[in-house]
Amino acid sequence: MESGAKKWGFQGKQGLEAASTATVRGYLNLLMGNINQDNCLTVVPLGHGDPSHFPSFRTTPAAEDAIVDALRSAKHNCYSTTVGVLPARRALADYLNRDLPYNLSPDDVYLTIGCTQGIEVVISILSRPGANILLPRPGFPLYEAWCAYNHLEMRHYDLLPEKGWEVDLDAVETLADENTVAMVIINPGNPCGNVFGYEHLKKIAETARKLGILVIADEAYDNIAFGSTPYVPMRVFGLTVPILTLGSISKRWVVPGWRLGWLVTSDPDGILQKSGVINSIAGFLNISSDPATFIQAAIPQILENTKEDFFSKIISTLRECADICYNRIEEIPSLTC
Amino acid sequence: MESGAKKWGFQGKQGLEAASTATVRGYLNLLMGNINQDNCLTVVPLGHGDPSHFPSFRTTPAAEDAIVDALRSAKHNCYSTTVGVLPARRALADYLNRDLPYNLSPDDVYLTIGCTQGIEVVISILSRPGANILLPRPGFPLYEAWCAYNHLEMRHYDLLPEKGWEVDLDAVETLADENTVAMVIINPGNPCGNVFGYEHLKKIAETARKLGILVIADEAYDNIAFGSTPYVPMRVFGLTVPILTLGSISKRWVVPGWRLGWLVTSDPDGILQKSGVINSIAGFLNISSDPATFIQAAIPQILENTKEDFFSKIISTLRECADICYNRIEEIPSLTC
Repeated sequence: MESGAKKWGFQGKQGLEAASTATVRGYLNLLMGNINQDNCLTVVPLGHGDPSHFPSFRTTPAAEDAIVDALRSAKHNCYSTTVGVLPARRALADYLNRDLPYNLSPDDVYLTIGCTQGIEVVISILSRPGANILLPRPGFPLYEAWCAYNHLEMRHYDLLPEKGWEVDLDAVETLADENTVAMVIINPGNPCGNVFGYEHLKKIAETARKLGILVIADEAYDNIAFGSTPYVPMRVFGLTVPILTLGSISKRWVVPGWRLGWLVTSDPDGILQKSGVINSIAGFLNISSDPATFIQAAIPQILENTKEDFFSKIISTLRECADICYNRIEEIPSLTC
Repeated sequence: MESGAKKWGFQGKQGLEAASTATVRGYLNLLMGNINQDNCLTVVPLGHGDPSHFPSFRTTPAAEDAIVDALRSAKHNCYSTTVGVLPARRALADYLNRDLPYNLSPDDVYLTIGCTQGIEVVISILSRPGANILLPRPGFPLYEAWCAYNHLEMRHYDLLPEKGWEVDLDAVETLADENTVAMVIINPGNPCGNVFGYEHLKKIAETARKLGILVIADEAYDNIAFGSTPYVPMRVFGLTVPILTLGSISKRWVVPGWRLGWLVTSDPDGILQKSGVINSIAGFLNISSDPATFIQAAIPQILENTKEDFFSKIISTLRECADICYNRIEEIPSLTC
């Protein structure tokens, strides 16, 4: 301690480093920081769901044009409303409404800074002393990080490899008790890449209803399905159980750096409203930052102008890459200096 | 409760609504939601530091061009590193280094989603049971909101109108105890619009050092000074006391919706490093979302290509508007239906 100063009265946050290192980005930072720069081997980053660097995964010009138009209009340099700008929420409600047995309104859609902020919001508002949450194993470690930060007890249920990584619903029933607030499902699966079928999602909804817990449906990879099982959004079962859906344009449009996601409340019976969850979402967003306003403002044009052939080209390229990874890995020559 | 479901086990976050409503955005949401739409009077929103809607406050084309260039390059659709992309941190370190008696490195600069996220980070990482923080009265209510959310005890010191809204340093000394972690100053002042002089900032630094607390310098309005006192950044006194500076392009470039800010650690003596504060900042950003990558990537070009005459035009227009507000308010005709 230098002269003239008392003992400094501040310190770092206890437990934060442990919670935050155990994320995909935390491990990546750790690994990349320890690379021997003298080694001639090129490091291929496989840790991130982000193929945007590769020309074959460039996003559609329609999306870039929408951003440029919104920016050049100079109408969207302002702060946005805390829940997101209305035209974007309206367009997303329409986009996400397809094939639902009830109607999403723009008020059910909250814009978030990617799914990352969506996870922060839902874990933060559901945390309370003594509560617990059910998380998939394997899963996406950012849930564990935010639960640890908020002292929300985690209970892990297994995904069953022999059943195509379906949820072990018996385990879910065994793990849940009167202090369980929610179960998280990730569909399409991260990291397993599986897709839950309609009947399995229905069983998840019925189980959650029976247990009195809500379902957090992480659909960051929505529509990224190239096997035999078609992608079905969890919110189809919103009449059975309240659902919080997390989604974004990051994966489908291959623009994770644009930081535009959504948190959608499926609450046709008003259960989330009555329980105070809706107010807490709005309250948390009141004190949090937002996606860039001109990116929000571009959403209606992005949704309207993106053609189906862009999506099918991305899916077909992904299928091809997955095929190489899973079936032909032994054909890739060893990397040598 | 409908048949087939147990009692629902989740609820909203206790205390969050109270904490979050008492912010500028919380009150704005409340007010705008209660406007009588049948009333013919136009509502002029004066609650927000955001003149970007008005053509005379349009940002410089150089900044828009930088964003478009970064976007069209397709090199910045990817996730960024958790602390922000290096070229932007390097350019900001150079920009913020001017006239400092020590050197900021890119490692001292963390990109944030506007100052809003900067406030979330600093209050969250400094909170611990029993600790307290000194906040200005009047001040910016988002500090109170994040302190309330984190259960960090707030102690308010007054700004003294008779001394040009200077900090009541006697009150600061009386309020602080061994559990005080930091004092927040806002300079240029929000909401008072005052600018602290060099000598006053020096006394703040010396007082904080004596008390063993760090200074959080909210410089969201940096360089927006049009009175007789020139703006001096608090970090000039980084050799006296550790400083966390919060800043952004929101006000100086009139683009609050672009959501690009910074948290800068002035720590030439390594005190923040030793105390774990630096690790906690990095840890919190590991689990948090980021500013859009292509906006980050535009920063070097924005800083390089913005001409001095843009800044001086904005300052002169602000001075003119302030003059109308303060001296000629009685000349504005009453609004009638």
